[in-house]
Amino acid sequence: MAYDAIETPFGKTDWIVGGAATYAAYAASNFIKPINQVSIVGNDFEQKEMDLLKARGVNLEGVEVVKDKKSFFWSGKYHMDMNTRDTLVTDLNVLLDFNPVIPESYQGSEFLMLGNVNPSLQISVVQQLKQRPKLIAMDTMNFWMDSALDDLKKLLTMVDLLMVNDSEARQLSGEYSLVKAARAIMKMGPKYLIIKKGEHGALLFHGDKVFVAPALPLEEVFDPTGAGDTFAGGFMGYIASTRDVSFENMKTAIIVGSAMASFCVEKFGPNRLKEITRADIDNRIRQFVDLVNFDIQLV
Amino acid sequence: MAYDAIETPFGKTDWIVGGAATYAAYAASNFIKPINQVSIVGNDFEQKEMDLLKARGVNLEGVEVVKDKKSFFWSGKYHMDMNTRDTLVTDLNVLLDFNPVIPESYQGSEFLMLGNVNPSLQISVVQQLKQRPKLIAMDTMNFWMDSALDDLKKLLTMVDLLMVNDSEARQLSGEYSLVKAARAIMKMGPKYLIIKKGEHGALLFHGDKVFVAPALPLEEVFDPTGAGDTFAGGFMGYIASTRDVSFENMKTAIIVGSAMASFCVEKFGPNRLKEITRADIDNRIRQFVDLVNFDIQLV
Repeated sequence: MAYDAIETPFGKTDWIVGGAATYAAYAASNFIKPINQVSIVGNDFEQKEMDLLKARGVNLEGVEVVKDKKSFFWSGKYHMDMNTRDTLVTDLNVLLDFNPVIPESYQGSEFLMLGNVNPSLQISVVQQLKQRPKLIAMDTMNFWMDSALDDLKKLLTMVDLLMVNDSEARQLSGEYSLVKAARAIMKMGPKYLIIKKGEHGALLFHGDKVFVAPALPLEEVFDPTGAGDTFAGGFMGYIASTRDVSFENMKTAIIVGSAMASFCVEKFGPNRLKEITRADIDNRIRQFVDLVNFDIQLV
Repeated sequence: MAYDAIETPFGKTDWIVGGAATYAAYAASNFIKPINQVSIVGNDFEQKEMDLLKARGVNLEGVEVVKDKKSFFWSGKYHMDMNTRDTLVTDLNVLLDFNPVIPESYQGSEFLMLGNVNPSLQISVVQQLKQRPKLIAMDTMNFWMDSALDDLKKLLTMVDLLMVNDSEARQLSGEYSLVKAARAIMKMGPKYLIIKKGEHGALLFHGDKVFVAPALPLEEVFDPTGAGDTFAGGFMGYIASTRDVSFENMKTAIIVGSAMASFCVEKFGPNRLKEITRADIDNRIRQFVDLVNFDIQLV
């Protein structure tokens, strides 16, 4: 949970709530309650943002508030292709002290999404849970592959599902082909792998099986910030609401996650996620059905 | 119809049959006969390649053979990402004299695919046909947008379907967003637009409708040469065999074209296309069905 300053070809915002856990919680809360949030914020984190999350069934007991520091702050600028961005400012602030403590009331959580932080912290969260969740999913990034590969590899043996983008999958595996990369990564631990490709959709791998989810072709990607975390939140929220961790159900969950991400990019930060209704979401999912549905008779 | 020399990260070939019309004919011949080929070759074009095409129902009456010149020759080198390539040699040879003449026996052809050549030649082919085909599709490239835009724009008013890649769609329309690019291009003439995105699949646009076809995630793209032309050939062959030019049927035709392209890249040049059977094709199409198929219950 953080604040961002974002510039895109379509506009600019100086200070807007963000952070992986914020996006994921907004997306997941459309499908499941409660969401047991674990994060850390500073004295600048607005009460109204806390209240908005609480009203959506997000439990904030696991969110540490540090009185004498500021929240994590990121500032970046996107270019026309929206797949590349320049980071202008990264102020770690409270994140330097982050040592997640799982509240007793969170014990028994069945679905765990580990956002992108130092793998040692992700490991700590898994180890604090007395009962192993039905599904442990994780995100990570290139930075940890460069700086904390041993911890990352240890964590990979503890999780069921890794979600990364294509360049991260290539770096982690050392393979250019995403099919070969997937095979190598699944040998490292996770039985399921999602490779996110932004505007080109996402791939789900499990054993020899593969599923391709398209991204919705959009007239304008206004601000891609948080799209990946929104995808993860939609995915996990749907899985948790169905309590079905099969490959077949994950295919549907990827479509749900993609639908949520397609809303996220329509406005700055999580603004669009704050206003959409369940009817909006169902209509968007119907668009995804139409997008990929075809008939063929084989001889 | 041409010869190529191709280098990829996986190997090298010095002289292999190629050319858009060759790839398209191999792909289409799995679905429809005869294929009325229009092209030009030199004295180096091998009789065995002609015989192979004839045996598949490709009519070569419209292929001019120039006795004192060589066939078009292209040499290129691909890098690891396979989306970019360096052209090493382009010898136009017979292509400098290309002035397609439609044989009388081709009159009445119902489905026309205009390969990527000078738009003035594409216009000439359309004008030579006494009866307008049920479907006129065309390919083009950036080069003609830079050097022959007026002819290209005239041609666009004469065709039903344009097939281009994403960067070509952006250049032609001046729009970065592919949704906006599609809308702008459809205003130029074609009621249908296919945007090819290589390993990321293809998009079909018609009015406000859009369909996304995935590419098959492959362990190895051995040689991408001809994949786009093979896609076009598979698409047109399927459309011609069903004689149905509706948006719904084009969706299926895109899957068929994508399946054909997924074979093409498995070996050098058209080698893989020469050996596959109808059973191979049906199995591959089934993989595409599995690749995108998901269940969802909406409330």
